[in-house]
Amino acid sequence: MPSFDLRLPTLRRAYRERTLTPRQLIAQLREKAAALNPEFNLFIHLLTDSEIEPFLARLDEPGAASLPLYGIPFAIKDNIDLAGIETTAACPAFAYTPAESATLVAQLIGLGAIPLGKTNLDQFATGLNGTRSPYGKCRNSVHPDYPSGGSSAGSSLAVALGVASFALGTDTAGSGRVPAALNNLVGLKPTRGVLSTAGVVPACRTLDCVTFFTATAAEASELFALTAQADPRDAYSRNNPQWNGASAFGTPRAFRFGVPAQLEFAGCAESPALFAKARALLEAAGGEAVEIDFAPFVEAAQLLYQGPWVAERYSVAGELMTSRPDAVLPVIRDVLEKAPAARAVELFRAQYRLQHLKAVCDAALDPLDFVLTPAYPRPVTLAELARDPIAPNSLLGYYTNFMNLLDYAAVATPTGFMQNGLPWGVTVFGRAFTDQYLLGVAELLQRASGIECVGGNAIEVSQRNAASHDRMRVAVCGAHMQGLPLNRDLVSRRAHLVQKTQTAPAYRLCALPASADGTRRPGLWRSEAQGVRIAVEVWDMPSAEFGSFLATIPSPLALGKVELSDGAWVSGFLCEPYGVESGEDISTLGGWRAWLAERNDA
Amino acid sequence: MPSFDLRLPTLRRAYRERTLTPRQLIAQLREKAAALNPEFNLFIHLLTDSEIEPFLARLDEPGAASLPLYGIPFAIKDNIDLAGIETTAACPAFAYTPAESATLVAQLIGLGAIPLGKTNLDQFATGLNGTRSPYGKCRNSVHPDYPSGGSSAGSSLAVALGVASFALGTDTAGSGRVPAALNNLVGLKPTRGVLSTAGVVPACRTLDCVTFFTATAAEASELFALTAQADPRDAYSRNNPQWNGASAFGTPRAFRFGVPAQLEFAGCAESPALFAKARALLEAAGGEAVEIDFAPFVEAAQLLYQGPWVAERYSVAGELMTSRPDAVLPVIRDVLEKAPAARAVELFRAQYRLQHLKAVCDAALDPLDFVLTPAYPRPVTLAELARDPIAPNSLLGYYTNFMNLLDYAAVATPTGFMQNGLPWGVTVFGRAFTDQYLLGVAELLQRASGIECVGGNAIEVSQRNAASHDRMRVAVCGAHMQGLPLNRDLVSRRAHLVQKTQTAPAYRLCALPASADGTRRPGLWRSEAQGVRIAVEVWDMPSAEFGSFLATIPSPLALGKVELSDGAWVSGFLCEPYGVESGEDISTLGGWRAWLAERNDA
Repeated sequence: MPSFDLRLPTLRRAYRERTLTPRQLIAQLREKAAALNPEFNLFIHLLTDSEIEPFLARLDEPGAASLPLYGIPFAIKDNIDLAGIETTAACPAFAYTPAESATLVAQLIGLGAIPLGKTNLDQFATGLNGTRSPYGKCRNSVHPDYPSGGSSAGSSLAVALGVASFALGTDTAGSGRVPAALNNLVGLKPTRGVLSTAGVVPACRTLDCVTFFTATAAEASELFALTAQADPRDAYSRNNPQWNGASAFGTPRAFRFGVPAQLEFAGCAESPALFAKARALLEAAGGEAVEIDFAPFVEAAQLLYQGPWVAERYSVAGELMTSRPDAVLPVIRDVLEKAPAARAVELFRAQYRLQHLKAVCDAALDPLDFVLTPAYPRPVTLAELARDPIAPNSLLGYYTNFMNLLDYAAVATPTGFMQNGLPWGVTVFGRAFTDQYLLGVAELLQRASGIECVGGNAIEVSQRNAASHDRMRVAVCGAHMQGLPLNRDLVSRRAHLVQKTQTAPAYRLCALPASADGTRRPGLWRSEAQGVRIAVEVWDMPSAEFGSFLATIPSPLALGKVELSDGAWVSGFLCEPYGVESGEDISTLGGWRAWLAERNDA
Repeated sequence: MPSFDLRLPTLRRAYRERTLTPRQLIAQLREKAAALNPEFNLFIHLLTDSEIEPFLARLDEPGAASLPLYGIPFAIKDNIDLAGIETTAACPAFAYTPAESATLVAQLIGLGAIPLGKTNLDQFATGLNGTRSPYGKCRNSVHPDYPSGGSSAGSSLAVALGVASFALGTDTAGSGRVPAALNNLVGLKPTRGVLSTAGVVPACRTLDCVTFFTATAAEASELFALTAQADPRDAYSRNNPQWNGASAFGTPRAFRFGVPAQLEFAGCAESPALFAKARALLEAAGGEAVEIDFAPFVEAAQLLYQGPWVAERYSVAGELMTSRPDAVLPVIRDVLEKAPAARAVELFRAQYRLQHLKAVCDAALDPLDFVLTPAYPRPVTLAELARDPIAPNSLLGYYTNFMNLLDYAAVATPTGFMQNGLPWGVTVFGRAFTDQYLLGVAELLQRASGIECVGGNAIEVSQRNAASHDRMRVAVCGAHMQGLPLNRDLVSRRAHLVQKTQTAPAYRLCALPASADGTRRPGLWRSEAQGVRIAVEVWDMPSAEFGSFLATIPSPLALGKVELSDGAWVSGFLCEPYGVESGEDISTLGGWRAWLAERNDA
């Protein structure tokens, strides 16, 4: 069976150098998938020659070669619509043939990607292990005694086994993260609403996300940047207030991450050391670990299956369960059977409790850049799942179930292997809209852990993700500094002081003439020839607050980029030329506080 | 009975000039309130001498006179806690005595305001008319045949009758807006979560807001700026990403507002002309009216009482209704009786429908600054309510019920009187966090309509609210202009082109040296002495997007303030001095497109 490196940069090089055509590749992949399916049950439906031909034919059109995903093969979890192909959600009695593709599938095809087939899943995406399907159990890509993980079972296998460059999963409770970590893949569980869910069979419609499985975080970052956009077809769609794509500025030199004070490994002998290693890798990269109370996260997680949210799942499968109980797997019936009795009053009370827990968890996250947890307490075996289909499945969700309820973004990423060869991974998660930042952290972990990823070593990601964080830094040199009159304009916008430092030795400072209300402010400007170091404070502020902050800044002041003494560039206050001309040069004092002190002395 | 002008500026002047002390004022107001109560039933509990003394004593402490609300009397709806005073929610059997004040009450007292008493309301804040209380019906402040409106009935009367400078209400379905319009007051129904609801008896906890009743929009603006802050006691608390306070920059010269294409006046002969007048006032002030489909707003409104949200109200009063049915008014029992049967599955389905409607309504609002509607189709009489306590009450909520479900901010404001003397008003509403902008519009309407407001004519509000809008304008002069390479950085952030214009004749433009990737960009700088007009485009962008936009801007470019040819100052691109020095002065070309054209020709 041929082995391919299907990563995006590798395929692009092969296409550019004409050592491979999309048509050749797809033919080989279809053959490979057909050969793997009897053992792994990864595809519910592999597209036929005639079904796949239109996608290949499009690539022959003029200009197609410049499409960003030209000839990139991908697999689609079978609860996501591909026009004209049956969607089953792993329940034959539920199946329908959609006229239209899911928005995200249409976006990817429009970008040149080629769908290979519809992948197997835990029925109605209800499960985290990959064995709850009438289309066969999905075993792990590496170790035959373990499951693939689910519910996006076949999608994880398609990438792990080298049949697709990337695959689409869904993730309500962990279905896009558990199988990633179990198969040495990156699983991006994006911020709710940022990738369209139009054309996806709902599990819990208020919580569902579509996910990407990739070999590397860099590829997930690129796919996310290409597809994250508001969708009028999806009422839960959200516009990302951060920029999803690349940016040339800002590299965090230091970061703070949370780790659970209470770690649960369910008795696993190896997981504690694997997790400690991942933590140490981040610390070695400049991160400061902060222990956080994990109890409220665990309590939120329990709401998902022990509370009225099960009623959401029932609203999809319930009708079928009533009319044709045999059409639904017994384990799914067991999970959903209590749902019809749940009352609206209880749901409101559970939502109040969740809102309280979210406030507590948000406060824990506020001073942190992200949180690091294991992807699961320990892997579970196929034998365990055969004995008890519920409890081992629930164990896999210990670190994942709370994520969508709390509206966080998360990335599962591999960081090592157990002694039996089974992949082991962690999750990094953070506030909504930090997706690209988290992918940057995942890339760092992949690189630092030095493990072989599917198709070879993880490729370099540029530091472009740094500025996509939901916080940004701003250098202030005047009345906004701590204790001075305009500091309130920072504090009231939830800004924190990060650093008292100086600019690079390339700036000058003047005292501007008094404004209409009599206040004096300084003006900073860059002058490489005659520059000196000027004292500044660096404050960290939510990105969304910069607009209203900018509104308060009067001419001749402006916000641009300032170089700090360590060579980093951050946003900061600068002065227009006419201000510089009208001001009194006070560069020799080295900063605004010195000028204020001198003036008070006078 | 003495008549006072209790507006904030008036009282402050009297205190400053020592023509009045808080102690004198409070004594007179307590006397007046006691005299009014038999007829109007506005207070459930008027604070006693000894209960009020601690608040007065605090004002004698050193430095107290500089408190922003020093000696300002206010009234508190009796579903909001004041420490040590019974909270009844207009249901004696429900009453409890809180140890702690509601956060907002504590904030106001801390700022120097004096609580006078707890005001009457429709029981459990369930009603819009003011007659559903065992503490007596609240008649209208002007016309004895009409109700005060509710549920914040007594609070509206306290301000309208000149007993308090302002009053706190609550508003789930319209309780802070309907009584404002019926009593010639401004009612601010703020964005959900921006004012704390900790210490408030919930009606629908996911929707409830605390409101301000004031004589003028300017006063509501000041109170909002003083109190809008995140509260750790309130899990539904939200940080306002816009600035709540004053700002010195930006005055919209033109604005677009929606009006319902389908107007409902319930057969009222006078309301259509009153509404047309309000619309004409805004048009005369530079506004462009745009008709919008009102059907989705009405459908969302119907979810509040016809759908499972009634179960939220039941979660507060339900236990009492079960154990002591006689303790709850029959009309409230009628409203809530179906709630216990509502199922969680139905609630999820209703939430999906609401999410869809919100997407539709948001899209309608997107190109608008705000929407103008009547406050109610028509006033209803006490006689009508006596005959049928449900339908006339529902009619009052036609233009208000959808607001919190859709997460909008709203201000009710008086714009005229009916021939029988009854006040008549409108509502202006807009996206979450546009509170201060909407108050600016309300102030404009109050001024333009020239009606006598409580205590005299509406005072001037500075144009400080303009910059608090959730959108901001940015002037671009180079590669961000329409059709040029960086325009995508605006479009992808939901920016719209507003105007192609020029700067004031006070700027110069240079072509900067090529950057590392070979691109050329212009630099703009202010030069009053040698300036010319430079072509710019003004784009309108959500304020929350400015942070990530700023991140993309490289040195020597910066965002500051640019003066346009009409004299307005907007945020815009400028260039640092070192960029100007290194660039080629192209001012004589008058703009970047001319330089590009010349270069292409060459």
